[in-house]
Amino acid sequence: MDLTDVSYLDGVTETLRRLEEDGAFLVTRNRAGQRNVMTIGWGNVARIWGLPIFTVLVRPTRHTFSLIEDSGEFAVCVPGPGELTDALAICGSESGRNRDKFEQCGLSTAPGSALAVPLIESCRWFYECRVVYKQAMDPRHLDGSIVDKYYPARDFHTVYHGQILASRAR
Amino acid sequence: MDLTDVSYLDGVTETLRRLEEDGAFLVTRNRAGQRNVMTIGWGNVARIWGLPIFTVLVRPTRHTFSLIEDSGEFAVCVPGPGELTDALAICGSESGRNRDKFEQCGLSTAPGSALAVPLIESCRWFYECRVVYKQAMDPRHLDGSIVDKYYPARDFHTVYHGQILASRAR
Repeated sequence: MDLTDVSYLDGVTETLRRLEEDGAFLVTRNRAGQRNVMTIGWGNVARIWGLPIFTVLVRPTRHTFSLIEDSGEFAVCVPGPGELTDALAICGSESGRNRDKFEQCGLSTAPGSALAVPLIESCRWFYECRVVYKQAMDPRHLDGSIVDKYYPARDFHTVYHGQILASRAR
Repeated sequence: MDLTDVSYLDGVTETLRRLEEDGAFLVTRNRAGQRNVMTIGWGNVARIWGLPIFTVLVRPTRHTFSLIEDSGEFAVCVPGPGELTDALAICGSESGRNRDKFEQCGLSTAPGSALAVPLIESCRWFYECRVVYKQAMDPRHLDGSIVDKYYPARDFHTVYHGQILASRAR
């Protein structure tokens, strides 16, 4: 892939807008090589602990959870506005536990530059991340209206803070 | 103050760059009216739980900690590039436990539009936030190099996720 190295903040506004609107792809791969892609709508980019950090949230019921727990690596691939919306919809509603969503959605992948986790070629912004901190949410200090709305099954997210080892753009 | 309501994402790139460079002001006030200001360099803005969220980190040893714990409210006030750098340096190195750093630094304040916590007038971007989730960091899942570098005293941050109730700009 012909990508340009960028600062982790260069695409932050577009990345956050895409997350808010159609979503972005969270790509994971375990050490055995099994990979998955899911759509995320929540996440953020910032400097914490002196490091550029991408934070994502994954419920323990997700197939992605077992992969990220195994490898401690993930990539966030952000499409351009209005692009790959069908794939985003499918990857946000179906599980990769029994199918390959890359094939199902016709998503070509390419190797990343920093980690073993693959990237989705036709995206616009790419963040390759190694988990430096994770924590399962504790509902004792979570607003009750959020618990009721998003966690009726009590499947609270684990929050993964990934050091951005490579940030690139098409 | 003559401020304009903006989307919480309008100033995100500038806010993150200011945090990374000179810092921004975290203003807190307890229910009894005691207030404080400290400088922060880490933090982020994103949509989580369907809400615009500003996340800040505060060590339990800070005076700010007792205030935010009491009221569950905070404001982040972001100066323009190169502005208020002396005040940022002072508010990042001295405690407000025994002095009023607003007076010491000549920082005029004005009422916010959504909460009781005051705003620092001469800033450029303003976020008024109500804590909807907080969690003390758990070092068991934190990279050892980060523990060694930032937490030799084991004073791990509490992470506060504040719903942005008002975001305004000068």
